[in-house]
Amino acid sequence: MQTKIVLTEDEMPRQWYNIAADLPSPLQPPLGPDGNPITPEMLAPVFPMNIIEQEVSTERWIDIPEEVLAILSKWRPSPLHRAHALEKALGTPAKIFYKNESVSPAGSHKPNTAVPQAWYNKQFGIKRITTETGAGQWGSALAFACALLGLECKVFMVRISFDQKPFRKLMMATWGATCVASPSSETNAGRQILAQHPDTPGSLGIAISEAIEAAVTDPTGSTRYSLGSVLNHVMLHQTIIGLEAKKQLAKVGIKQPDVVIGCAGGGSNFAGLAFPFVNDKIHGAEIEVIPVEPTSCPTMTRGPFVYDHGDTAKMTPLLPMHSLGHDFIPPPIHAGGLRYHGMAPLVSQAIIEGLLTPRAIDQLECYESGALFARTEGIIPAPETNHAIAAAIQEAKKAKEEGKEKVILFNFSGHGLMDLVGYDNYFQGKLTNYALPESEMGNAIRELDALPKPKVVRTGKW
Amino acid sequence: MQTKIVLTEDEMPRQWYNIAADLPSPLQPPLGPDGNPITPEMLAPVFPMNIIEQEVSTERWIDIPEEVLAILSKWRPSPLHRAHALEKALGTPAKIFYKNESVSPAGSHKPNTAVPQAWYNKQFGIKRITTETGAGQWGSALAFACALLGLECKVFMVRISFDQKPFRKLMMATWGATCVASPSSETNAGRQILAQHPDTPGSLGIAISEAIEAAVTDPTGSTRYSLGSVLNHVMLHQTIIGLEAKKQLAKVGIKQPDVVIGCAGGGSNFAGLAFPFVNDKIHGAEIEVIPVEPTSCPTMTRGPFVYDHGDTAKMTPLLPMHSLGHDFIPPPIHAGGLRYHGMAPLVSQAIIEGLLTPRAIDQLECYESGALFARTEGIIPAPETNHAIAAAIQEAKKAKEEGKEKVILFNFSGHGLMDLVGYDNYFQGKLTNYALPESEMGNAIRELDALPKPKVVRTGKW
Repeated sequence: MQTKIVLTEDEMPRQWYNIAADLPSPLQPPLGPDGNPITPEMLAPVFPMNIIEQEVSTERWIDIPEEVLAILSKWRPSPLHRAHALEKALGTPAKIFYKNESVSPAGSHKPNTAVPQAWYNKQFGIKRITTETGAGQWGSALAFACALLGLECKVFMVRISFDQKPFRKLMMATWGATCVASPSSETNAGRQILAQHPDTPGSLGIAISEAIEAAVTDPTGSTRYSLGSVLNHVMLHQTIIGLEAKKQLAKVGIKQPDVVIGCAGGGSNFAGLAFPFVNDKIHGAEIEVIPVEPTSCPTMTRGPFVYDHGDTAKMTPLLPMHSLGHDFIPPPIHAGGLRYHGMAPLVSQAIIEGLLTPRAIDQLECYESGALFARTEGIIPAPETNHAIAAAIQEAKKAKEEGKEKVILFNFSGHGLMDLVGYDNYFQGKLTNYALPESEMGNAIRELDALPKPKVVRTGKW
Repeated sequence: MQTKIVLTEDEMPRQWYNIAADLPSPLQPPLGPDGNPITPEMLAPVFPMNIIEQEVSTERWIDIPEEVLAILSKWRPSPLHRAHALEKALGTPAKIFYKNESVSPAGSHKPNTAVPQAWYNKQFGIKRITTETGAGQWGSALAFACALLGLECKVFMVRISFDQKPFRKLMMATWGATCVASPSSETNAGRQILAQHPDTPGSLGIAISEAIEAAVTDPTGSTRYSLGSVLNHVMLHQTIIGLEAKKQLAKVGIKQPDVVIGCAGGGSNFAGLAFPFVNDKIHGAEIEVIPVEPTSCPTMTRGPFVYDHGDTAKMTPLLPMHSLGHDFIPPPIHAGGLRYHGMAPLVSQAIIEGLLTPRAIDQLECYESGALFARTEGIIPAPETNHAIAAAIQEAKKAKEEGKEKVILFNFSGHGLMDLVGYDNYFQGKLTNYALPESEMGNAIRELDALPKPKVVRTGKW
């Protein structure tokens, strides 16, 4: 009974898949504060031009550089597992497969984009990369990539996480990165906020502002900023997940899955697994593709498709996306990576085109599903990943009711070894669900009324 | 440039290698308190008979049950990596390879024996397994194995670790095991100690006593005890590591390594990698085989080969081993897994036979080596594993001085994601070396004078 389907290094994909080439409607550009499209040149102080070119590219296939492949091959191709034990526990006729991205040294899918981002920066002559991080998942992945490529890495970490969750900060330090609590006294943005609110817990919005400022104000011009999700080039780099999964399913004689599932915060692990299958769907395949979010932060299921800022402080351009409003503050659920007000423009547009069927699931059902997974399949999942597992279990139960031998594929985006406190709270009965009141959501979204609206031409029939 | 050498599931070893068949002198039996050999029947209340049979077996090859292989294949065969980046940083002509045991769901080599131990117990009709754990590495591995095999698992965890290191306890809970602080009020041994010392931090010795008592006093007779290192059957189960490594080296055209290295606390990860190569050495191959220990707990390099108890409370039989004395209390270094007064009898005897060249390394050199490894190879090592890395780096530097293209192989026994506080202390300059004063060591060892002495017949020429 084979439980693990592997690929050799020779079978690793040599190109990333760019869904921008295949979406029925063209992706709409980011806008500046004046409502006019942002040009690549305007982004040049923030990102290196080779990454900006990827961000705006509509080429279907983009070569993965050899050196990037060599580093990724330290843990890739990642295994695809058949969840026999979980299937048995559920008594389902469905075949459940999961792509195991927890095998990376940082414990998640994040290094899939951290490594190429660091590599392109290095190629462009950049010496130092800045970024922000919430709980530290992305900051630690970028620290890892910079260590391997010999770049300096500076991470602005939201103060409350910096103080309360020391472990990912220690991972960054072990990989040689500098991590400071945000707001810090190192930037104008940070100093201003500290002057007004010396005891602020910080926010991702403030940390983004500091990281961008630290990049664009370096007098040597050799610093750039890096983002771990949301943007097009990040989705691109993650497609190696789905491209591998397709080859692995083919090895066990499966032409295509019936259902593809990923949790979605900014959207990158979901897109990474799903987009190669969405391509098949655009070209006629019958596949249900489900991005899963928490009911407490229902960006895709209840947020409108609008132009909105990526950060609270409105430092970023306006992006066409599903959003709960840039000042929306999600309830304190344990899946920190899914507490984001927006959604990647590429994922958002695929939703509008009818290619995806988003789903929101409550926190308690997610932990229940994650605990069942840990006790059957043996790997302790990250709280974010539990959302994908919960949806897979829902689908497996549905297949049982329908008596169908469906093939369900989900992304096991990361392990939960740094997130055990959430499980402890769950087992002790301390966790609750957070259904978002209409009033709170409305307040956040009404703010968006003044912003330009993205146009969508629905051409697909799915 | 290939950095990772993998095997398919079909290439997994189907048998474990038992070095007891090949050691020049026969292994001497454990002794009871009266100085007479322990019989298998005397161990029957503690271990299931199928494991006792393995413990005393001198068969060279022992079949791995199919169901055990199926579970191990969730993460095995583990990858063998060529450490190109570390070699480059050291400027060494040596080729450094490491076997990556950190890819298991528990993060170390421990599940290699936890899974078969749980399986043999289940085959024997046992419903519940007890064990002790210090920092929690072994307890979490056994909890993992019991979850997958549907057995109950009860872990007695040394109180000071239970209070100060909550994360592995939470791993055990997530896998459904029951973990209590030791001494507990659940056993006579625990209650007695609590009555005398209500504030005791506990010890591994006390926890062993409680776990054994909890197993042997179960009125239903369906509980047994399990140990994660030291014993012969544990070394046996770990040999899958070295057997895989041999096949992997052969795939890149290497007939045998020049140097084989592993850190050694109880001895199991070292033995697991090394014993298949020691077999080659017994049959004429020129290989230097190095078990590495901390200078603060120099069992192999300064402790005599004696009959001693495995635990402080003298609950276990007398085992023929290198020991610093069963009441020796090692300094509080961060590599908790290497703070053990004794050494596996099979490893101890191989030392006496001249097959191994043990080495002790200071804590600071180990952390320096581990940090260099993390920043070049990208994986954060466990503090225990840093000892193997430090020795590999010493050997690589020696190869550079000698201008030799040596092949160095070491066991990357586990990742350090649950041990980041040690790195933090190291980077902050808070750690020191602990050279053990002769006087302290002597006191512990003089206690042993009253015990019987094991006999050794040296027949090998290495």
